[in-house]
Amino acid sequence: MNGSNADNWQAANDPNLKSWVESANVPECDFPIQNLPFGIFSDRSNAAPRVGVAIGDSILDLAVLAKEGLLAQNAALFESISLNAFIATGRAQWRGLRARLSALLEANNAELRDNAAIRKRALIAKTDARLHLPVEIPGYTDFYSSKEHAINVGSMFRDPKNALLPNWLEIPIGYNGRASSIVVSGTPVTRPNGQIKLPDNERPIFGASRKLDIELEMGFIIGAPSSLGDALACERAEQHIFGMVLLNDWSARDIQQWEYVPLGPFNSKGFATTISPWIVTLDALEPFRCEQPEQNPQPLSYLRHAGRHAFDIHLEVGLRGDGESEAQTISRTNFRHMYWTMAQQLAHHTCGGCNVRVGDLMGSGTISGPTPDSCGSLLESTWNGQRPLQLQSGQTRSFIEDGDELILRGWCQGDGYRVGFGSCAGKVLPARATV
Amino acid sequence: MNGSNADNWQAANDPNLKSWVESANVPECDFPIQNLPFGIFSDRSNAAPRVGVAIGDSILDLAVLAKEGLLAQNAALFESISLNAFIATGRAQWRGLRARLSALLEANNAELRDNAAIRKRALIAKTDARLHLPVEIPGYTDFYSSKEHAINVGSMFRDPKNALLPNWLEIPIGYNGRASSIVVSGTPVTRPNGQIKLPDNERPIFGASRKLDIELEMGFIIGAPSSLGDALACERAEQHIFGMVLLNDWSARDIQQWEYVPLGPFNSKGFATTISPWIVTLDALEPFRCEQPEQNPQPLSYLRHAGRHAFDIHLEVGLRGDGESEAQTISRTNFRHMYWTMAQQLAHHTCGGCNVRVGDLMGSGTISGPTPDSCGSLLESTWNGQRPLQLQSGQTRSFIEDGDELILRGWCQGDGYRVGFGSCAGKVLPARATV
Repeated sequence: MNGSNADNWQAANDPNLKSWVESANVPECDFPIQNLPFGIFSDRSNAAPRVGVAIGDSILDLAVLAKEGLLAQNAALFESISLNAFIATGRAQWRGLRARLSALLEANNAELRDNAAIRKRALIAKTDARLHLPVEIPGYTDFYSSKEHAINVGSMFRDPKNALLPNWLEIPIGYNGRASSIVVSGTPVTRPNGQIKLPDNERPIFGASRKLDIELEMGFIIGAPSSLGDALACERAEQHIFGMVLLNDWSARDIQQWEYVPLGPFNSKGFATTISPWIVTLDALEPFRCEQPEQNPQPLSYLRHAGRHAFDIHLEVGLRGDGESEAQTISRTNFRHMYWTMAQQLAHHTCGGCNVRVGDLMGSGTISGPTPDSCGSLLESTWNGQRPLQLQSGQTRSFIEDGDELILRGWCQGDGYRVGFGSCAGKVLPARATV
Repeated sequence: MNGSNADNWQAANDPNLKSWVESANVPECDFPIQNLPFGIFSDRSNAAPRVGVAIGDSILDLAVLAKEGLLAQNAALFESISLNAFIATGRAQWRGLRARLSALLEANNAELRDNAAIRKRALIAKTDARLHLPVEIPGYTDFYSSKEHAINVGSMFRDPKNALLPNWLEIPIGYNGRASSIVVSGTPVTRPNGQIKLPDNERPIFGASRKLDIELEMGFIIGAPSSLGDALACERAEQHIFGMVLLNDWSARDIQQWEYVPLGPFNSKGFATTISPWIVTLDALEPFRCEQPEQNPQPLSYLRHAGRHAFDIHLEVGLRGDGESEAQTISRTNFRHMYWTMAQQLAHHTCGGCNVRVGDLMGSGTISGPTPDSCGSLLESTWNGQRPLQLQSGQTRSFIEDGDELILRGWCQGDGYRVGFGSCAGKVLPARATV
């Protein structure tokens, strides 16, 4: 079953497909039948986390489907607190399962639609479910691949005339992040304490960050590992990617500024990183592939790939102040602006022989567009606090305040449907008392 | 059994103890009865990796002992490819087990000594065994805590008059390393390819590193986790440490120099990190606790701890050229020189709420002493290749050459015995061909 399904994987991307799950057919729904992202959930009736797929306003319980013999896979693969075991089965399995789920959910397919008993157990309302971190993440790497972001930061802290460092146009610059503190959307984030060097003080103080910020990013999840010593060819690197998520690389700018020379950011980032709960497969994103920005100078040969390797993903940042009912959109940008592609990032990551593992998370770096209202961080949109944002509530924001909820959203716009990521949200709690 | 043993844990450090395993009583042996370090091994008769303890020139198979009812623990805890499950049982268990093993191995204890049948299966000659990575490492952090090293590097690449960066005396500077490429001693290391910017070229080239180096470090393993949001108090941070290993943070200096601004080292370090196979418990190191160097200025309050938090551990680096029978010692130093203590590193790591997990590895940073023959890297001892080392073979070394084996050793010198770490070795293989 999987073999033929895997060969037909593109059929699941047909824009004309409709599902018998009616909520999936609404044009603004992030989870139409063309998406089918994977996640981990539990619900009131079953507290055990397990693998699910989002469809409309529901979640399809793959463990139930497998137990009923509706899938080629064994149910044990889906009775798991992470997607890692399933992802490790390989690309043909991902594709075969997605094709099978597409067929099962298609409007005219009666197999599950008309089986009320199974449907009742297999289809869980999202409102009844709790979403968990979808993968166990053995390694987290964060890149710095938006040229607009790098120029903004370089202009602010170094020299506007030489904003880009000499290595930036040659290397998809990246660094190792902290995996232990990656949390799923909805997890509150406590404002960090840390060392801060105030301009008029001789020595640093220890206290709560006064410049807490977001970084609007996307992340990709490694689906096929590499061996220690092997370099992944740029042309084939995408085959190692399972899918993508939204990512908020929370950043304490005051802690960062004092600590980051010479070894890079550490405590300023390590207190929390939030990702969205649904992994949208690279296969589902295929129709939204587009041309990457021109690269000048032409990259070194190990970073070259023919064809289109960017993806057209609309991105938004919302801010909801404490007690407010609605979030206000404070930034709009697009993943297609990224200078370095995911394939180039992965080729660079492995070019010295460093191995990647199933579940590894690779962040894009802050995604900023060319205009002030398309910045991926408050650092940039308020120019380090010098030009506070004016909110509709009448309040202003230089950086994040306690009680603010920050919400990232992203979707690919199809003709009459969206392939979306849902949201990646976190509310900021006050710092803990220091000794 | 464990409760009372745990309370008596210091009895296992008695310098007068002898073992019926004769090889453990030789004064130069790294693994006397006072040590009892934990590791993972397999052997010819049983290819399944499992938990062992080093004693003299043998390994004690804890799974066999547990099956025979000689230990309080269940055998399943030791039939494991990593120490993580055992470590997660907590400090009272570590102490209880060490006390029990000390009693079992003590010269006058007949229980195991005189049971030839069990002894034959439980005591494996090291020459018949293969040693594996002792822990699964969810996170790897590398610090930069030797003042001598920081001054050497600062003098070389910045200004000898202002060699220390302003934050260095305030922060135990650290950064996230790559956990996927950590290997156990004995694993060959392939010279990495990477981007290198030669002084006379406008653009970088891609090729094999010409400045491959070691960093002599020690690492500590987290034994008790912390929760996201919690800061570990400096005074109690050592209670979260299970034990220590030797660590070689292989570094490609030419790749590092071009890539590291502004986010720190990445490919220059991520191709391999080697650790020694035996984890020496902090309990076994207790008799070698000593005074840390004076800290001026006095650290901020969250980094303060009363008492002695350094450890007197002799360290050596050996180099064995291809085809040579003997390694030549090229550096001798001591872990006690470290400016920042492990407790301070851990307090700083968690001060913003970043959580640590069982098995996390924390590297000390290169350990250099005050003299040229006590440098922990070739970068320092050859002053970036300007003063090549003269080897006894007649050869010279500016940096590591293909075929060189680098061997770190370390031990605490007791009165008539050593508590040692064995060796942390790796032979360098030529770089792979580039496209």
